[in-house]
Amino acid sequence: MLRINDNFNRLQASYLFVEIDRRVDAFTAKNPDADLIKLGIGDVTMPLPPSVIREFHRGVDEQASADSFQGYGPGRGYDFLREAIAQVDFASRGVSVSPDEIFISDGAKCDSGNFQEILSPDATVAVPDPVYPVYVDSNVMAGRAGVWKEGRYDRLVYLDGTPENGFVPSPPSKPVDAIYLCFPNNPTGAVATAAQLSAWVEYARSHRSIILFDAAYEQFIRDPSIPHSIFEIEGADEVAVEFRSLSKTAGFTGTRLAYTVVPQKLTGTDSDGRSHAIWDLWNRRQSTKFNGVSFPVQRAAAAVFTEEGQREIQELSSYYLENARLIRSAMEEVGYRCFGGENSPYVWVESGGDSWEMFSRLLEKAAVVVTPGAGFGTCGEGFVRISAFNDREKVTAAIERLRNNL
Amino acid sequence: MLRINDNFNRLQASYLFVEIDRRVDAFTAKNPDADLIKLGIGDVTMPLPPSVIREFHRGVDEQASADSFQGYGPGRGYDFLREAIAQVDFASRGVSVSPDEIFISDGAKCDSGNFQEILSPDATVAVPDPVYPVYVDSNVMAGRAGVWKEGRYDRLVYLDGTPENGFVPSPPSKPVDAIYLCFPNNPTGAVATAAQLSAWVEYARSHRSIILFDAAYEQFIRDPSIPHSIFEIEGADEVAVEFRSLSKTAGFTGTRLAYTVVPQKLTGTDSDGRSHAIWDLWNRRQSTKFNGVSFPVQRAAAAVFTEEGQREIQELSSYYLENARLIRSAMEEVGYRCFGGENSPYVWVESGGDSWEMFSRLLEKAAVVVTPGAGFGTCGEGFVRISAFNDREKVTAAIERLRNNL
Repeated sequence: MLRINDNFNRLQASYLFVEIDRRVDAFTAKNPDADLIKLGIGDVTMPLPPSVIREFHRGVDEQASADSFQGYGPGRGYDFLREAIAQVDFASRGVSVSPDEIFISDGAKCDSGNFQEILSPDATVAVPDPVYPVYVDSNVMAGRAGVWKEGRYDRLVYLDGTPENGFVPSPPSKPVDAIYLCFPNNPTGAVATAAQLSAWVEYARSHRSIILFDAAYEQFIRDPSIPHSIFEIEGADEVAVEFRSLSKTAGFTGTRLAYTVVPQKLTGTDSDGRSHAIWDLWNRRQSTKFNGVSFPVQRAAAAVFTEEGQREIQELSSYYLENARLIRSAMEEVGYRCFGGENSPYVWVESGGDSWEMFSRLLEKAAVVVTPGAGFGTCGEGFVRISAFNDREKVTAAIERLRNNL
Repeated sequence: MLRINDNFNRLQASYLFVEIDRRVDAFTAKNPDADLIKLGIGDVTMPLPPSVIREFHRGVDEQASADSFQGYGPGRGYDFLREAIAQVDFASRGVSVSPDEIFISDGAKCDSGNFQEILSPDATVAVPDPVYPVYVDSNVMAGRAGVWKEGRYDRLVYLDGTPENGFVPSPPSKPVDAIYLCFPNNPTGAVATAAQLSAWVEYARSHRSIILFDAAYEQFIRDPSIPHSIFEIEGADEVAVEFRSLSKTAGFTGTRLAYTVVPQKLTGTDSDGRSHAIWDLWNRRQSTKFNGVSFPVQRAAAAVFTEEGQREIQELSSYYLENARLIRSAMEEVGYRCFGGENSPYVWVESGGDSWEMFSRLLEKAAVVVTPGAGFGTCGEGFVRISAFNDREKVTAAIERLRNNL
């Protein structure tokens, strides 16, 4: 008889954004003429930069001729892309990452969701709260989260983000096996200083834990003192992997390309006490269940790492950061306490009450979609996330409506 | 302490094609001037058809302008693509599949590797032997295969493919929860008749099992009596999912697009005996760990389902089928018994001995790469798989060399 994976029963409600879509659909069904402005999911709206488009076309043309046609690519991605990334994203900042340590993929969501597969089923996992739901749900499905009790899973260790710690939690007092960290943070927009990251690396080294570091938003950092990569911290290559994405950086949410850095030095231990390279395990996982990213997309992505491409994506992120600044200052003007929005495209606004209620109020009164903080965990209650990913015109219009309806 | 998933230790050697690459690399290092002809992995060599290229460019152009720019797409794929597939791949053959039942993905390897996640960890799984290694390895990693004993995993049920049953195994005598089937078969090239598939559907209905049907090679079927889809069998929509791919069909191995059909009627049971729609579970899995396929790639794929595209891919598959016919008749001419190669791009050749030995002999003497049958399981020993995916010129040259060296 077909027995299902019972762990799926332990998942709470729908995936956050699916639930938001459902409510928005219900609203637009009732209000077909409403001019909805979406500052919810954080999806980019600006087109791909010109150099990316040019190389994307070139990649398509190469697929049109037998001489240049590309079938199955190298599993971890083409050298031309991995070498460019190692140089531009790491070497240029004084960080040593080898192209061999870079695994190209079709999304940081996929990688951060799949990476737990190589951990022991009984590993203890720490997650930030508020949290990007994928870290939690992928562990629930694998049976690693335990059961849901009073708003939390009983086997996860929650790292509380609060106004007091500026949404940068400190390491827990007890040892854990794996820790998800995300800076610049989704959803709070918080960034971590080198000293704060060093404390985490030190913790992981002393407890032999792994840090799963999500740096999908590093491109938005403007403060020169803030690290872009966990690997800027000494010793991190013995305890961390890092997820990166072109989704927000270069407008690739619909084009799909990301990568994960797995240092060769990083090891884990099996139940017999033998050491294994995490690189080998991830490589085996990927070569068994993944077949690489579309060749023309890899061509397009490589353009991001040219001088021209870097200039273009800098302009892109500055555009969204200006949106974030406008949103934050407007919200502060009408009296809300705000976090984030400075080295991050997300503004984290204290709602002063039930966050789904504020979500509904903004939807009903202003036809503006935000994301209720409660969807990100217990510590998200009392906040909403406003995304800066939209056209300036719409952001300005949304700000006007929010000003008048809050 | 970072404890790894011990199940990875139970995987045998490297993933087959990684091991072949290793041996081929060693050969070319020793023989840098060898003119290697690869009839191994089964990677297409012909460029993407003109209509696909045209729509691919159009999709890229749409990403260049804010008006037509696509960010995150619908999780299961764009309607324009799912509707075209439902019409062309199913309705046109009298099979009712709703666009809602189609999940677009970046590969049938990914889907067939990931689908086991929604099965109970203690489900009994049947796999064909010879087998596409992904079915086995993905279950090993999930702890569902047991331990390796005398050449097989002790918790898997193996469905022996032999010359006697024409490599179309019959249902086992005992009940199993999940069954992987692949027709036209990789690696043997065998096809299943409607009567043979009906026996499987009947078995699955009576035992409430799920059939994971891999139809990645259906485009190569020329015999009009052979079903292209498991859903041509009555009642299959209550017991089966089907994996499809454009990789071999339309030359997408390096471009990446596939899809999985999950019928709304299909259900499984949790340990409390409650029924769950498999569609809901797969949708939840995908929406949590996957973010859709690149929009321009979906545009490109949609061209495959136009009248022009269908004509083009028919030509493509006919080209490779003619290669297969040439390979098979040459091998038969020199005295080898062959299977497949008629409604399939793979010729399955009885080696009359150790298949890695025949692999090495062909590599050393003819500089031709094939795939040793032993890599596909116990029943694959004594056979090699020769792939028809190459240029006619190279196939003809390979045939000459094989004739002279066998």
